[in-house]
Amino acid sequence: MSDAGSIPPDVTAPLETAADVLTACDTLAAISSSDSGINRRYLTPEHAAANATTAGWLKAAGLRSWQDGAGNLWGRWCPPALIAAADSEAGVPRLVIGSHLDSVPDAGRYDGILGVLLGVAALTHFRQRADAGEQSLPFALEVVGFGDEEGARFGATLLGSHAIAGRWQSDWERVEDEDGIPLGDALERFGLSGQTAARASLQANPPLGYLEVHIEQGPVLEAENLALGTVTGIAGARRFAVNFVGQAGHAGTTPMALRQDALCAAAEWTLAVESLACDVQAGKRADMADHSLVATVGCCELRPGAVNVIPGGAALSLDIRALDDAQRDRALDELLNEAHRIAARRGLTFHCEQTHAADAVACDEGLMQAVDAGIAATGQAPFRLPSGAGHDAMAVSHLCPVGMLFLRCERGISHHPLEAVTEDDVAKALAALIASIEAVAVRHV
Amino acid sequence: MSDAGSIPPDVTAPLETAADVLTACDTLAAISSSDSGINRRYLTPEHAAANATTAGWLKAAGLRSWQDGAGNLWGRWCPPALIAAADSEAGVPRLVIGSHLDSVPDAGRYDGILGVLLGVAALTHFRQRADAGEQSLPFALEVVGFGDEEGARFGATLLGSHAIAGRWQSDWERVEDEDGIPLGDALERFGLSGQTAARASLQANPPLGYLEVHIEQGPVLEAENLALGTVTGIAGARRFAVNFVGQAGHAGTTPMALRQDALCAAAEWTLAVESLACDVQAGKRADMADHSLVATVGCCELRPGAVNVIPGGAALSLDIRALDDAQRDRALDELLNEAHRIAARRGLTFHCEQTHAADAVACDEGLMQAVDAGIAATGQAPFRLPSGAGHDAMAVSHLCPVGMLFLRCERGISHHPLEAVTEDDVAKALAALIASIEAVAVRHV
Repeated sequence: MSDAGSIPPDVTAPLETAADVLTACDTLAAISSSDSGINRRYLTPEHAAANATTAGWLKAAGLRSWQDGAGNLWGRWCPPALIAAADSEAGVPRLVIGSHLDSVPDAGRYDGILGVLLGVAALTHFRQRADAGEQSLPFALEVVGFGDEEGARFGATLLGSHAIAGRWQSDWERVEDEDGIPLGDALERFGLSGQTAARASLQANPPLGYLEVHIEQGPVLEAENLALGTVTGIAGARRFAVNFVGQAGHAGTTPMALRQDALCAAAEWTLAVESLACDVQAGKRADMADHSLVATVGCCELRPGAVNVIPGGAALSLDIRALDDAQRDRALDELLNEAHRIAARRGLTFHCEQTHAADAVACDEGLMQAVDAGIAATGQAPFRLPSGAGHDAMAVSHLCPVGMLFLRCERGISHHPLEAVTEDDVAKALAALIASIEAVAVRHV
Repeated sequence: MSDAGSIPPDVTAPLETAADVLTACDTLAAISSSDSGINRRYLTPEHAAANATTAGWLKAAGLRSWQDGAGNLWGRWCPPALIAAADSEAGVPRLVIGSHLDSVPDAGRYDGILGVLLGVAALTHFRQRADAGEQSLPFALEVVGFGDEEGARFGATLLGSHAIAGRWQSDWERVEDEDGIPLGDALERFGLSGQTAARASLQANPPLGYLEVHIEQGPVLEAENLALGTVTGIAGARRFAVNFVGQAGHAGTTPMALRQDALCAAAEWTLAVESLACDVQAGKRADMADHSLVATVGCCELRPGAVNVIPGGAALSLDIRALDDAQRDRALDELLNEAHRIAARRGLTFHCEQTHAADAVACDEGLMQAVDAGIAATGQAPFRLPSGAGHDAMAVSHLCPVGMLFLRCERGISHHPLEAVTEDDVAKALAALIASIEAVAVRHV
């Protein structure tokens, strides 16, 4: 990459339209540690360049910007009348709009970034309206571009949003990147430290709410032929390493009735996993009212894995998510019991180990209604859907109420260079975000 | 290894009992290219040492031995009365007993070897009986230890038995081992050549039959609580590389109804494969009278194969075998049609490619009856079973009628250091082999 570290010249113009925002996404996409693909990790020169470039767009709109102690980039607009009325600007209530500026390896150009830049455009819009003498907001607006959401450098995710939520853990500072550099050292090379990161907490003076715009990273809005959706919550996920252990044997000499084929057991269970999640999503399970349940077997490795040997072992993964943690856990119990039944019937053994667990986060009902109203203002009927993927809003939910607006992306593809959105959908998302902020204002007054 | 190339001192005693044969198996097990495990490949110093050691046991019994142009070791006993009656010994009919002396990598000590040494012991028995003036046989006996059955060095299998069957292919001589040595060069380093290998053919003067004793390499005899079984034939095998191609997607964001999960399709098909083979073996398919059908999915590799990604592709293997080639192919068609149906219903594509095909070989009914009689002579009721694994008898069937006697092995384990037989079963196998040869003699007169 050529321009990392310097602010591209066209950042003198503020972000006003969807076209401006998309051009800005292209500008940030060029800030990458690799010539091919987009790679922008926490506390790297590319992180600094993305912050500086985003600060340029804020400055171009006459907005104040700063970097916090965890490396998150902030911008702020405060209605002049509120500054005048308050003892200090710190006492002015504020709504935060944000997402993240870092990327996964070989990323698309919209995941996170689009939400930050739509926030910048929304602040620009309200500042310009106030300058034109139109009705102002009863709170300040801040935009945040988190320095780390994906965890691509240190494995731990959501570092930026955990910091502002007051959840920075000092033992994270010892976690090393692939070059053996501890997070604590990386902070210092960036001009920060573990202490400054911990002090990025906003717990002493929380915002009134947090709104995040994000590409859906899934196919639901496209399938519904809708540009926008209101997120109801972020599913809690549990993951397991699962093993069926049978008996390897000669594929030619072992009669079917004498086999303990681990793949056949795994196949039966994989279909049971699919069937339960399908039934729940289709509303066929009266005892499972939360239809957000998804369950996936993503890995399958056989031992020994040879064309002429009956599989003696099958190692699978299970990823199960839902908005309702208790229901997800009941579904999980049902699936693990079924695995034991399948194994016992076939003369195999089954064991599993949890590798990840996160509880679900519910979006704030008031903010959901504001986002519904924002979507309605674009002429689209409001549509609600859960988020199966994790987002900064998960960490921020420990600080203040959160809401999210999802934007359709092509074929649901994300974390891939083919990530795509239409300018028309981005225009609708910007209009909906602005209208959502106005709806928050109406409720706030 | 230490002793390769020299004949161990205890080879001065002939093989007479099951205990002698088992001790001889231990002696051959020490002839390995690696200190740990048994590794004995074609045309290596270990091959030469195994041949020399086996020749030692033949010599100790007063039997003639030689190595043919393909590196197979032979021994022969001819009843003196037949030599006197014939114009030349070449005109004397002969029955060949044999198996192979080479091994798979990290092998067990009985696969192939036991059959060769039981042949040596049977020749020893008949020679000693004739020396004692007891009734002799109306044919000569030969034993063969094939130099290559497993194909561990050059990939191509059954090289030794193909050679005697007149099926040596000159283009095999260009096939290289893992060190880049062509088979033709390896033959010359061994004092042989492609020409001598081709001239090992016995097509000009075929034996009257070939009998092979082999461990079952499967669990049937153990499950039936029987020491011995008569082999009805060697199943023909076809193998395929199979692919289901769907769409990878985010495990959290893609609703169940919008997935094209390649593993779920593969799971459904794997169970269809199992179900058809089980039904045929259980006699539940009136249209499939050959109950020897086995079908196995041994490999399963997912793309991308990550815990949080819906599998977009699944690459499986299929191995399908039966004694009746036509029925096996009908079962195969049914399974491939089912794969297309599953893929179409789920919005995936399916394609497959054949990677191996071999027709079944039937054992000779006369030789099967002789083996039945041999088993009956040990006090066990005759029991017939198919061989799902390949054997030298497959290649030899192109030269003369073939028959096989299977011997129980512990838990069906083979191609593994844990391969095990009991001395009692080996004694029964030797007695049955001797009685089978006598039964052939009765039919031959």
